Formats: sequence, C-alpha cells, structure tokens
Amino acid sequence: MYTRPLARLIEQLQHLPGIGPKSAQRLALYILKRPEEEVKALAIALMEAKTQVGLCSVCFHLSADPICEICRSPNRDSNVLCVVSDSKDVIALEKTREYRGKYHVLGGTISPMDGIGPDQLHIQPLVRRVSQQKIDEVIIAISPSVEGETTTLYVGQLLKPFTKVTRIAFGLPMGGDLEYADEVTLARALEGRRELD
Amino acid sequence: MYTRPLARLIEQLQHLPGIGPKSAQRLALYILKRPEEEVKALAIALMEAKTQVGLCSVCFHLSADPICEICRSPNRDSNVLCVVSDSKDVIALEKTREYRGKYHVLGGTISPMDGIGPDQLHIQPLVRRVSQQKIDEVIIAISPSVEGETTTLYVGQLLKPFTKVTRIAFGLPMGGDLEYADEVTLARALEGRRELD
Repeated sequence: MYTRPLARLIEQLQHLPGIGPKSAQRLALYILKRPEEEVKALAIALMEAKTQVGLCSVCFHLSADPICEICRSPNRDSNVLCVVSDSKDVIALEKTREYRGKYHVLGGTISPMDGIGPDQLHIQPLVRRVSQQKIDEVIIAISPSVEGETTTLYVGQLLKPFTKVTRIAFGLPMGGDLEYADEVTLARALEGRRELD
Repeated sequence: MYTRPLARLIEQLQHLPGIGPKSAQRLALYILKRPEEEVKALAIALMEAKTQVGLCSVCFHLSADPICEICRSPNRDSNVLCVVSDSKDVIALEKTREYRGKYHVLGGTISPMDGIGPDQLHIQPLVRRVSQQKIDEVIIAISPSVEGETTTLYVGQLLKPFTKVTRIAFGLPMGGDLEYADEVTLARALEGRRELD
C-alpha cells in the first residue's frame, strides 16, 4: 500500500506515544509535502536533543550543560529545594512562575513491582545536598499515587534530621466541583483544611 | 524553561499538523528517554522518506521508484483508471481492497482562489494516457466540495471524447442515520436512487 520509505516512516512515527496508524499516516504524508530543509531541521533537532541533552550533575534535571540553568542562576533561592519525580514536573512548576527556589529530580518513584528501589533513584545525592548545604526547607512535590506516597515518606524520613520537610497540598482543584470530586480527594481536602484569615 | 536542544525539538515538533505545545513537549520528553538508536532510526526514516519518495511518472502517486508498484503490477486491470486528487485517496481506496484497476493522481483540485488552475495539476498527462491507451472506463473519485465538483466536471469534459467517464456515488454513509444527514447529502442520496433488484 505504501512505497517502502513511506512505510518505514509511518512505522517509526507509530512508536511515538499517542500516535496511532491514522495519525502516523497523516503526519508522514504531511512531511513528504514539506520542503527538504524543513524535514532536515526536524531530523537534526531529534538527533541533537537526544545526543546533547543529559542530566544536570547537581539536580538531575534535563540539561545540555553539565550544570543546568536553574542550578547556575544567582536569582534562585538556594535555601529552598523542591523534590520532584520527573523533569516534566520541574517544567510544570516553572510554568506557574510561583517557585523561586531550586529543584532535585529523583528520576522516578520507588516501585518494587517495577524493580525500582531507592538506589535506582537520585536519592543519595539529594541527602548529600541537604546534609552538606544550608537548606531551610525541602518541599516534596510528588503525585499522591501509591508509589508517590511511599517515595514521599521515604525521602521525608531521610531528610528530616537535616531540615524542615514539607509537601505540596492536595485538595479540590481550582474550578473543581465538590459534587464531582472523588472521595479520596475530598477526604484530603477536608484533612488539609485551614482556618480562614 | 527548556534546555536549548530540547526547546528546538519542541519547536520543530510543533510544526507538525495536530501537534500543539503540550503534545510537542510530551513527545520531546518521550524521545529523550528512548535509546539513541531508536531516535536515530526515526531521524533517518524522516530523511529517507523525504529524499527517496517522489511521484510515479505514470500516475503521479507517491513512489520511491520511477514507476509505482500499482502501475507496474501485472495483476491490475489497465483498462480502468480511477482519478483522485491526492495520493492519500489512493491509499484510502486501496484499503477497501475493492478496486483492481489503476490510478491517476491529479495532485489537487482546481481552485482559482489558491492560484491552482488546470495547468498546476496532472491533467494533461491524464488526457494523454486516456487518449493513447485503450481505457474502458475512467472513474472520477473526488470529494464533492466546490473545487472538487469543478475539477470533476472539467476532467469529465476532457475525457468524454475518448472513453466512458463515471464518478463514485454520493449518499447516506453506511450506518448513517437519515435523520441526522445534512440536506445536501440527502438530496444526493435521493438523486442517486437505484431500483431494488
């Protein structure tokens, strides 16, 4: 049905998440109609991202430099550390423009079922950072799944001897309807209630 | 927010149809986690598809060879020609496995607003094919938009002196509910009514 190089491209595109056979065909036919320089730019961007982007040696966030921009920045508060499981959580938090401290990316959550124990995560370097530097607060911002909870508690226990450890709030999402919230969220929202100012 | 090679990849991915900033970020972060060989395979597939796939010199369908597989096939009926506007229509028709004739891809539809006249399409080679070969029937399979209708009528007039010209049926889609069909479709379905066997 497809000429061979087109079939190969469609097959490769289907490896991407959320791209099924129909989307892959549509993308491939679109790509064939673009100028060669444009396709080349995409191919080069793919290879350069893959070969140049590694992990920051301090916080383990994605970085093309040995130490990432956030860790190098003199404008960020070095006394506050936010612990997340993945680089995409750093990106999400950065988008809020609310947080001015630094980060530490664990690279996953503790999940014995998947063979991921504390040693597979960047937990030791985190303990070293917190024990050797002056850190006023560590904010743990990990999703409240079973693995997330385990990781939060584990990391919290390790860091408590050195500094104040907090975690982000869970509750009703803004704009969320109380009626449609699931019980666990609602229970968390109740539990986390605060006095009105 | 993003380290530079990652930002560039996200930007390139956003050029693709249906890929917005969120999808582009998700795809890029996924790609960074894949093994280098896998990313390389995608980059190579992109470049090879773009550089190797051209148009069949007979029917103008996408092809990596000078003459496409369908045109070369001895199992296809050379006496029937199906005229479509785009290569993706050939793919859609091939998927039905109903059609055993050959194709001719116009490369678009007549659209003066977009500066596309008959000379920008592969209409002259079609007339040459039909006038010089023994063709029993030309089936025009072009979507019934304004431009599609214009193109169908124009091509039909040019080919009628040489062979029988038909067009595919328009009507209620299979499984479609009469109540929800638009008037134009319903009018076409009435117009195209056939006697029960």
